[in-house]
Amino acid sequence: MNTFGQALRVTTFGESHGEGIGAVIDGLPAGLEIEEEFLALEMQRRAGGKNLYSTQRKEADEVKILSGVFEGKTTGTSLGFFIQNTANKSRDYDSIKNLFRPGHADWTYFHKYGIRDYRGGGRSSARETSARVAAGAIAKMLLKPFGIVFQSGILSIGEIKGETIDFQNAQKSEIFALDKQVESAQKEAILQAREAHDSLGGVALIKASGVPCGLGEPLYYKLDSAIGALMLGLNGVKAVEIGNGVKSARLRGSQNNDMMNAEGFVSNHCGGILGGISNGAEILLKVHFKPTPSIFLPQSTQDMQGNVVQCEIKGRHDPCIAVRGSVVCESSLALILADMLLLNATSKLENLQKIYS
Amino acid sequence: MNTFGQALRVTTFGESHGEGIGAVIDGLPAGLEIEEEFLALEMQRRAGGKNLYSTQRKEADEVKILSGVFEGKTTGTSLGFFIQNTANKSRDYDSIKNLFRPGHADWTYFHKYGIRDYRGGGRSSARETSARVAAGAIAKMLLKPFGIVFQSGILSIGEIKGETIDFQNAQKSEIFALDKQVESAQKEAILQAREAHDSLGGVALIKASGVPCGLGEPLYYKLDSAIGALMLGLNGVKAVEIGNGVKSARLRGSQNNDMMNAEGFVSNHCGGILGGISNGAEILLKVHFKPTPSIFLPQSTQDMQGNVVQCEIKGRHDPCIAVRGSVVCESSLALILADMLLLNATSKLENLQKIYS
Amino acid sequence: MNTFGQALRVTTFGESHGEGIGAVIDGLPAGLEIEEEFLALEMQRRAGGKNLYSTQRKEADEVKILSGVFEGKTTGTSLGFFIQNTANKSRDYDSIKNLFRPGHADWTYFHKYGIRDYRGGGRSSARETSARVAAGAIAKMLLKPFGIVFQSGILSIGEIKGETIDFQNAQKSEIFALDKQVESAQKEAILQAREAHDSLGGVALIKASGVPCGLGEPLYYKLDSAIGALMLGLNGVKAVEIGNGVKSARLRGSQNNDMMNAEGFVSNHCGGILGGISNGAEILLKVHFKPTPSIFLPQSTQDMQGNVVQCEIKGRHDPCIAVRGSVVCESSLALILADMLLLNATSKLENLQKIYS
Amino acid sequence: MNTFGQALRVTTFGESHGEGIGAVIDGLPAGLEIEEEFLALEMQRRAGGKNLYSTQRKEADEVKILSGVFEGKTTGTSLGFFIQNTANKSRDYDSIKNLFRPGHADWTYFHKYGIRDYRGGGRSSARETSARVAAGAIAKMLLKPFGIVFQSGILSIGEIKGETIDFQNAQKSEIFALDKQVESAQKEAILQAREAHDSLGGVALIKASGVPCGLGEPLYYKLDSAIGALMLGLNGVKAVEIGNGVKSARLRGSQNNDMMNAEGFVSNHCGGILGGISNGAEILLKVHFKPTPSIFLPQSTQDMQGNVVQCEIKGRHDPCIAVRGSVVCESSLALILADMLLLNATSKLENLQKIYS
Repeated sequence: MNTFGQALRVTTFGESHGEGIGAVIDGLPAGLEIEEEFLALEMQRRAGGKNLYSTQRKEADEVKILSGVFEGKTTGTSLGFFIQNTANKSRDYDSIKNLFRPGHADWTYFHKYGIRDYRGGGRSSARETSARVAAGAIAKMLLKPFGIVFQSGILSIGEIKGETIDFQNAQKSEIFALDKQVESAQKEAILQAREAHDSLGGVALIKASGVPCGLGEPLYYKLDSAIGALMLGLNGVKAVEIGNGVKSARLRGSQNNDMMNAEGFVSNHCGGILGGISNGAEILLKVHFKPTPSIFLPQSTQDMQGNVVQCEIKGRHDPCIAVRGSVVCESSLALILADMLLLNATSKLENLQKIYS
Repeated sequence: MNTFGQALRVTTFGESHGEGIGAVIDGLPAGLEIEEEFLALEMQRRAGGKNLYSTQRKEADEVKILSGVFEGKTTGTSLGFFIQNTANKSRDYDSIKNLFRPGHADWTYFHKYGIRDYRGGGRSSARETSARVAAGAIAKMLLKPFGIVFQSGILSIGEIKGETIDFQNAQKSEIFALDKQVESAQKEAILQAREAHDSLGGVALIKASGVPCGLGEPLYYKLDSAIGALMLGLNGVKAVEIGNGVKSARLRGSQNNDMMNAEGFVSNHCGGILGGISNGAEILLKVHFKPTPSIFLPQSTQDMQGNVVQCEIKGRHDPCIAVRGSVVCESSLALILADMLLLNATSKLENLQKIYS
Repeated sequence: MNTFGQALRVTTFGESHGEGIGAVIDGLPAGLEIEEEFLALEMQRRAGGKNLYSTQRKEADEVKILSGVFEGKTTGTSLGFFIQNTANKSRDYDSIKNLFRPGHADWTYFHKYGIRDYRGGGRSSARETSARVAAGAIAKMLLKPFGIVFQSGILSIGEIKGETIDFQNAQKSEIFALDKQVESAQKEAILQAREAHDSLGGVALIKASGVPCGLGEPLYYKLDSAIGALMLGLNGVKAVEIGNGVKSARLRGSQNNDMMNAEGFVSNHCGGILGGISNGAEILLKVHFKPTPSIFLPQSTQDMQGNVVQCEIKGRHDPCIAVRGSVVCESSLALILADMLLLNATSKLENLQKIYS
Repeated sequence: MNTFGQALRVTTFGESHGEGIGAVIDGLPAGLEIEEEFLALEMQRRAGGKNLYSTQRKEADEVKILSGVFEGKTTGTSLGFFIQNTANKSRDYDSIKNLFRPGHADWTYFHKYGIRDYRGGGRSSARETSARVAAGAIAKMLLKPFGIVFQSGILSIGEIKGETIDFQNAQKSEIFALDKQVESAQKEAILQAREAHDSLGGVALIKASGVPCGLGEPLYYKLDSAIGALMLGLNGVKAVEIGNGVKSARLRGSQNNDMMNAEGFVSNHCGGILGGISNGAEILLKVHFKPTPSIFLPQSTQDMQGNVVQCEIKGRHDPCIAVRGSVVCESSLALILADMLLLNATSKLENLQKIYS
């Protein structure tokens, strides 16, 4: 089940400390120009090793396209790519080889498969998200000519929550902070957690603008359905809100409904989705990340033989995965909307007539 | 895209005011006893028309099995069923035929498909969830012999939130209230909203116990992924939380990680899912429902010609969809876990050896 | 696995002697007019009970549409239909309840599922093909405006093979014979087999004209791939040929290649498919049906306890399934091409630009 | 649509003259030992460049496993591999860059996608089958412990058809000839076609033994359905027969049915499949390959501007693709049976009980 999408299908493979991470993108329309420079920029947005707020593992994250592109354009055939791992330090994991790290997938992978690649969590590592970001970058190339663009940033870090939403600030910020007023406090909170050998949770806001009305395939591949699947499936995400989200459950219908005037909808409490289909307004999501489970404090756990032991984790980890996670959410939303754009192409008979006439 | 599931696939059809609602369940193992009585009980839990806290539409909700069962047991072939609509009052919709109801899917369906079945929302109506509950009941029959059981209830209605979680109380309560202390206040809030011709949001808590470790298929059909897809795809749901959920984003790793002692995990902040796979603990979800969009207050909207008009909705509607929605969430979780149980059957070579020896 | 298709997905259910046969068609574009009269005509082409060359079971084969159509047009939502069984004579099967009929799926269903619906073969009966023909009729309605039309007929019955291909004759013929010269001999052969309490094999020819270049999705959902899947999956089919078929394996490249002149291809040895994609020429298939396994001669078989017994089949059976099977092949090809037409809509970026501009 | 399979899903990518060919295998049970030596042997069986009866392109065909294997065993995660192209001679294709080669996919790819990778046919080249053979080798490793083994060989080359079926001879033969009596004549026929700058068709026989009863998923993923899909989707295949195949259409039921005695089935006219499910007998297929379309004789065709031109093909091509194609068919059947073995694991409730108790 390493494939996401229906019309645009992305299949990924690879482990944190294996050869690398790769993917196959199937269903890309032919004739799309692949901008390698943009692809590299997107990879850099997700990459760690740039400051103290992220992991110190510094990966080249170079995406090598292996197929599906000819003379700079997609050919309609499957596009394979590979991102070599270059900064493996598997010896960091020798100490945890025989035990189950709290908050990690070690326990569940071992019990499910009867085997476990202990090097950096193997397949369960967030290193896999590099493939999502690369695929998401290609999805963005597909969407841009149709006016669909993306923005994201950090709303809150631990208890420190911003009020203002300033995507411009997020772009320049080392922690993608949306609110300049609280940015330093948020940074400080991360560093404090880091110094305490601990980690911190956070919340990302994701936005897509220019989305045409009609994307989403009721009843079981609605737009919000796909968002729920990709976001809650992302490492460390424990809650997802669309539009008013949690707040809407506290409101009355007369407060939460989006009414219309002559220009269209006068509010966007629904986050751009009605009945699982985009309504033309901005798509707005909040994604809640738990604190990184890898902390350097001693923790009580079991080893493979069932003995209670103290776990002392080494390695290079993000003190707050929400920061880099926000980029992956943005890429994920791009993948979803690209898929939905393709699926919606055959929603009406008149669309077919436009193509086959 | 009217199909959910990978190994156990449920395909639904039908509209609110058409002939009825039906489904095909594909992938059911042969030899499962179908308990018609339990099926009817489950349908009754979801059914409206029983009190003032739900819709006054009273449907028979009789599930007629059309195939796939022989002498009381599944045969391994596709199980089709149909639930006839018996309480249609399509004339209630004549007044909204030409306009887009705020908060509803009218606008998006019309723009996506160029056509719209205005009778009760057509396919976009929550009436479709009757098929989910019927299919979920069959999923529960499959899961029960393996010790997997379900409970659910209402945590909060509007601003009124319970503290205690008492599933026994929920079972007896007309609004499935989990906390007897606040039950009357919650009922009162619903009635007040109703009398004000308005509606109210609410939050449901869903629990699955006895889930074995190993269910969930990384990386794109993780257990939380499937939960996100089915819950956020449900009518009116705007947020989903797993385990600590929203709260986990405010914590440190040392607070949020679930440590282990000799008996196993000492806490369940993760809600029973690690790395997308069940860890043997209880699965715990919070599902946030927006207030019913159908309210009887006048609302500003557009008609099909783009004129701004006042919308006055008639018909029979739930004043708070969270109440009956909680049952649908429970059924949805049963469908997910049944699918995951089947998928996990081939996770290890030794499982195949058990079967084919 | 009761679903066929990728963009246009047909999921069927039902058994030979159960309530009836039904299907859900998902992915139909909205705005397609459903011609109930044409649907009934197609059902009649497949129906038995009309003459001595087919089964004497006379089913009403009335297709009741349950959803997905509003005011005569598709709405873009899932279209469910049901065909009630009206001419069940399950008592015919009491004598074979405890044994495995040679050439039938009794043995394999029982061993696969550990249970068996013995009434007329249950799900394994060709009665299921009524759903395919109904769905195929709707596929034809979708394809017709794009100029794609179908023809079919019988090439040979047992050893009696026609030379001429006259689809007009096939239309009028009780056995859909393509060659008037051999029609009587073919009829005679069927009657002789019937009188001998035996049955006979036959070969059908299927043609689609007006197919635009470009249909088929390499590499694993090529046009010929889908044809292979649906035709070889049809009851009684044991071989499928495309274009020159078996003959092409005896030729040299210079004889088998289709060259071009200024007008286009000068021959059609490839049967309209190159590299798995339609080339604009006619799609041409030969489908080989085995003789009906249900014969009235005594046959040696095993009973459920493993004893060797004589099997004496009763009931109403086609003396030659190729005849009615040819209609099902035609419907199957319509389903495939409709699916391919939808899938091909997003093959090129310029198609998307036509739709979303 | 570059994915095959339901439980065991193989997604391939890559072109004839690009970087190489790769695949992702998803759904492999954990704990399977990967024998790299066997993998290399299988690749060698398919490889060309060994004698005058195949292409002179000599590829290293080294399969580099990129993920999904840890300490020699599968981990249950997606297995990616890549086969680098090492013997590209793209300049051979400069002369055909601007025209459509007869019998090739040039015309259809260009019309479908509006773009065309002319180097060796790009994605449409049979070079992709190297990925199928590598994946098939892994499927064989999975099947072998369950007693399922494969054999194949060449039945006929052009008009020269063998009588005897001797898989031992096929193993030693440079052209995999099943009948030693006609082997020299078959070789001679290939060389003659080659010297005449032409090519020749042929027929392969494929056999699987030890297949347990029960594999195949009615109604739309029957065993014969999957065989039809993969075989007819293979480059150059124009007909597929199962068991008696074409011959069965000329027989009576009393001749074609497989009766039973105390030991089981007394004949195998059905080729091991009844009702789409394996019956425990040998699976037997005949696969008919057209002659290689790449011939060195001048052929009339169109160029990209629609002018009629003479096509003169250069490059290194198989004079008879049936020979190496037979190996790919065998691998394809292994992939199908591995998929079916996994799917069948949940056919009965008692199978689940064996696993989850």
